[in-house]
Amino acid sequence: MTSLEGAQCVIPAILARRRRIQVVLLKRDLPESRAQDVLEAAESCGVPVRRVEGSELDAVAHGKSHGGVVAICSTLPHTTEDELEEMLDRVRDPLLLLLEGVDDDRNLGFTLRTAESMGVLAVLVKKHVWDFDETEVARSSSGAYERLPLVRFESVDVLMRLKRRGILVYGCLAGVRRSVFEEDLSCGVLLAVGGEKRGLSGAVRDVCDGFVTIPTVGGASSLSLSHAGAILLGEAMRQRHAKQMRLRRGLENGPGDAGVEIA
Amino acid sequence: MTSLEGAQCVIPAILARRRRIQVVLLKRDLPESRAQDVLEAAESCGVPVRRVEGSELDAVAHGKSHGGVVAICSTLPHTTEDELEEMLDRVRDPLLLLLEGVDDDRNLGFTLRTAESMGVLAVLVKKHVWDFDETEVARSSSGAYERLPLVRFESVDVLMRLKRRGILVYGCLAGVRRSVFEEDLSCGVLLAVGGEKRGLSGAVRDVCDGFVTIPTVGGASSLSLSHAGAILLGEAMRQRHAKQMRLRRGLENGPGDAGVEIA
Repeated sequence: MTSLEGAQCVIPAILARRRRIQVVLLKRDLPESRAQDVLEAAESCGVPVRRVEGSELDAVAHGKSHGGVVAICSTLPHTTEDELEEMLDRVRDPLLLLLEGVDDDRNLGFTLRTAESMGVLAVLVKKHVWDFDETEVARSSSGAYERLPLVRFESVDVLMRLKRRGILVYGCLAGVRRSVFEEDLSCGVLLAVGGEKRGLSGAVRDVCDGFVTIPTVGGASSLSLSHAGAILLGEAMRQRHAKQMRLRRGLENGPGDAGVEIA
Repeated sequence: MTSLEGAQCVIPAILARRRRIQVVLLKRDLPESRAQDVLEAAESCGVPVRRVEGSELDAVAHGKSHGGVVAICSTLPHTTEDELEEMLDRVRDPLLLLLEGVDDDRNLGFTLRTAESMGVLAVLVKKHVWDFDETEVARSSSGAYERLPLVRFESVDVLMRLKRRGILVYGCLAGVRRSVFEEDLSCGVLLAVGGEKRGLSGAVRDVCDGFVTIPTVGGASSLSLSHAGAILLGEAMRQRHAKQMRLRRGLENGPGDAGVEIA
């Protein structure tokens, strides 16, 4: 069991229904206006709520930023490689993200948040480097951590499985010749982004179908992993959005709509 | 006077030559391999270096992450509106970024880092909200804080001055109809991005030439300010990169090269 703190973490966890939530603890004197959304989410999903003293919340919580709301719950079940394949069976032109060398809980959370917004189907992270403070990841992800499937993979065999399904694996590296803006990211692709210190591992590079870079101006420092990811995913969104607009206008005779509904 | 901590903050500060650096303090037993870059930067710019005990560094530094390198220096001089205009006289098709409602030192630092990489000429932040821990901003900016002009403006009069120069001011808002991907960002533009809580202020909205949004998928949370900024700047870079490629190939008879050299 673990705990989630703050309404902005607890509400998405309740609504995503992926954790077993034992109880939601609410500070006894929490103003009704601030308790309402939590109470509604809990009621809609049959989660028990208990009113407690502030001192009890402080004892359970990691930090002071729970704002009177803590959930006692199971850890989030991670998505297996088989489950990923089942998801892929149902989606056309999936967009996947692989992260290597993320060294910061908050940057992971922010990246998950952006990945979800940009229509990523699942995020892949190496299993043996999984050492994150779940509370911090959840908080900075603004709920995306609860909803977006996260696959902790053992080896690059998972990438071979994806490649056999026709998904193109692109490694994002500084300094390679081809810009990401020249590549077609509107088909089924996995974007692999490496950490700032060591970049992508040799094992991942070895299975990449190609390498792309984000052009930067001379003299500037490199991009952070988290912002490089945002720019790559923004470019994927741009291309997919344009494709969807073309399909809607009937300028292409595609077999149907793209898998993701853009707001 | 203030202090800067860690080689990754101190070296860019020395090389940017925008602060008066009184002295660089190096831990007496710092390995030569780690001292070398600092010593070279200091020598090249005539900055005095003093070897001290670790306890002296700990006493001067805010935190423990100085890694044996601290600079005692003036605060960074901010760029005035008149200096910004002088810079604009020398650049064609400038890209400017305005940030409102940044509530986190690290997110500001990451955004400055990306802004510099994407060719932003200067970043504008409202003067009365300037309340950042300079050390944290500098650290997360990976040197960009030392190099990228930062204009703390008093009122939106500065935007009127920019508009009179032909710079288009775009406000970035969630939910507006026009996507940023449909707008021409390769001419002189200022992108105004608001905080997650309140968005752009009425005063800034009132002077915008247009509003753009980043399309997101339904059901996902909104983007963080810092990642929204990265995606917007990535799109500006894409368009400017494409324009530069066209100019190089001679397909357009532009009056010359774009102001920024893309690596």
